[in-house]
Amino acid sequence: MTYCVAVRLDAGLVFLSDSRTYAGVDHINTYRKMYRFERPGNRAIVLMTAGNLSITQSVVNGLQAAIRGEQEPNLFTVDSMFDAARLVGDRLREVYVRDSESLREFGVDFSAGLIVGGQIRGEEPRLFNLYSAGNFTEATPETPYVQIGESKYGKPILDRVVHGLETLDEAAKCLLISMDSSIRSNLSVGLPLDLLVYERDSFEILKHCVIGDDNAYYALIRKRWGIGLIEVFEQLPTPDWENMDLTAEVLRRSGNPHTPRQTPREG
Amino acid sequence: MTYCVAVRLDAGLVFLSDSRTYAGVDHINTYRKMYRFERPGNRAIVLMTAGNLSITQSVVNGLQAAIRGEQEPNLFTVDSMFDAARLVGDRLREVYVRDSESLREFGVDFSAGLIVGGQIRGEEPRLFNLYSAGNFTEATPETPYVQIGESKYGKPILDRVVHGLETLDEAAKCLLISMDSSIRSNLSVGLPLDLLVYERDSFEILKHCVIGDDNAYYALIRKRWGIGLIEVFEQLPTPDWENMDLTAEVLRRSGNPHTPRQTPREG
Repeated sequence: MTYCVAVRLDAGLVFLSDSRTYAGVDHINTYRKMYRFERPGNRAIVLMTAGNLSITQSVVNGLQAAIRGEQEPNLFTVDSMFDAARLVGDRLREVYVRDSESLREFGVDFSAGLIVGGQIRGEEPRLFNLYSAGNFTEATPETPYVQIGESKYGKPILDRVVHGLETLDEAAKCLLISMDSSIRSNLSVGLPLDLLVYERDSFEILKHCVIGDDNAYYALIRKRWGIGLIEVFEQLPTPDWENMDLTAEVLRRSGNPHTPRQTPREG
Repeated sequence: MTYCVAVRLDAGLVFLSDSRTYAGVDHINTYRKMYRFERPGNRAIVLMTAGNLSITQSVVNGLQAAIRGEQEPNLFTVDSMFDAARLVGDRLREVYVRDSESLREFGVDFSAGLIVGGQIRGEEPRLFNLYSAGNFTEATPETPYVQIGESKYGKPILDRVVHGLETLDEAAKCLLISMDSSIRSNLSVGLPLDLLVYERDSFEILKHCVIGDDNAYYALIRKRWGIGLIEVFEQLPTPDWENMDLTAEVLRRSGNPHTPRQTPREG
């Protein structure tokens, strides 16, 4: 598995992906999962992938080949991010037609998830989440983030802070903490990370960095977030049993059939 | 789905379960998922269930019937918690033999997870996690907690604080926060909660409460935990781009095939 997450703010888009590919604990590899498609001044499109690597690499290969061969439609010429998402979904469906039956023969599900985001001149920045069937949904102001792969571990922190984010730097910090939760709880998510920040109306990617074990900023927020959580936890009061609705006696008296209980016979 | 979690400390055991049963968004019900088997002075055993409700209710029914009918073995007479876990696993395998083929006919997986924990006189408190196949694992000092159901959302907070827990009340607080993360991020986990604290060598359950929307303590820690997290988040520095390894230029110069990029043709 893997974990990729992106968020859309008024100020632009932030993308973060890990690089762990997992096919059993004795088959862990590092593959980058973030791909950039840029025509500076006109468009900047970012793709992130999760699921079966042979499927997603085939999709990316098809998208790149179309650009190189100047076949239409391609990601350098589509008119909108919606069309870009549809194009990626179409490539995914082509891989499905070609590969799914052979995969099924070997008991392998056809499973892929992709995030497509960016901005094409004439539009706002947009962000899409594509599913295995090639269909997709768009991030909205109510749910401004999208996730693929091992998304559950990192979802609670997003749900808590995403609506208060005002700057792209804050969003980057939030995604890194979400990633850290996934990495700590799941072996199949791992460093290095690709962090990419797209500023609205720049039509060019100016901030994209690879974060490894030696990245001082990531190490700092990991550490301070962990310590901060424990401090908050320790400051919370423990249960106030005096005012809890203790049901033991109630259940006992009611003879609730869910709770067999005997008078002591020994003890 | 559902979410149940339990933890073992030297001081005893803490159990927490939600009560949401989910079979599609138009079919959400409340079912308690915690069952108690007590012979005061001799043993206190707690069972929590997740997965297909028809399966787990059949298991519980079988366990209760054996006690009422004084059939051996049963949970009131087994010699150890290991034997208790094995007994629960055996009941689950009986349900599998009876129901799995019919379920398969209707495309329903045979899926169940159970937590069995407690103390029988002569032993320490012990805690087990049972899987659909009726096999099980025991919680250890290295991994003192077990989870069933929608476990991923609530795992990061457990991983961060569980090794620092010293009292059962701290453990109860920790499980409630783990539950809160699940409830906030997943519609299929919901109130009311069953919280049960078993004190080592008491051989009796003295603290068991049902936590609903109106529980002041749960409301307080939910609120303060949420605010605390946001404060920690806000105090963390934003990315230090000056010292990040910005790869945009590197990738551009290297002509990385993953990042097609053109000289502007328009814009």
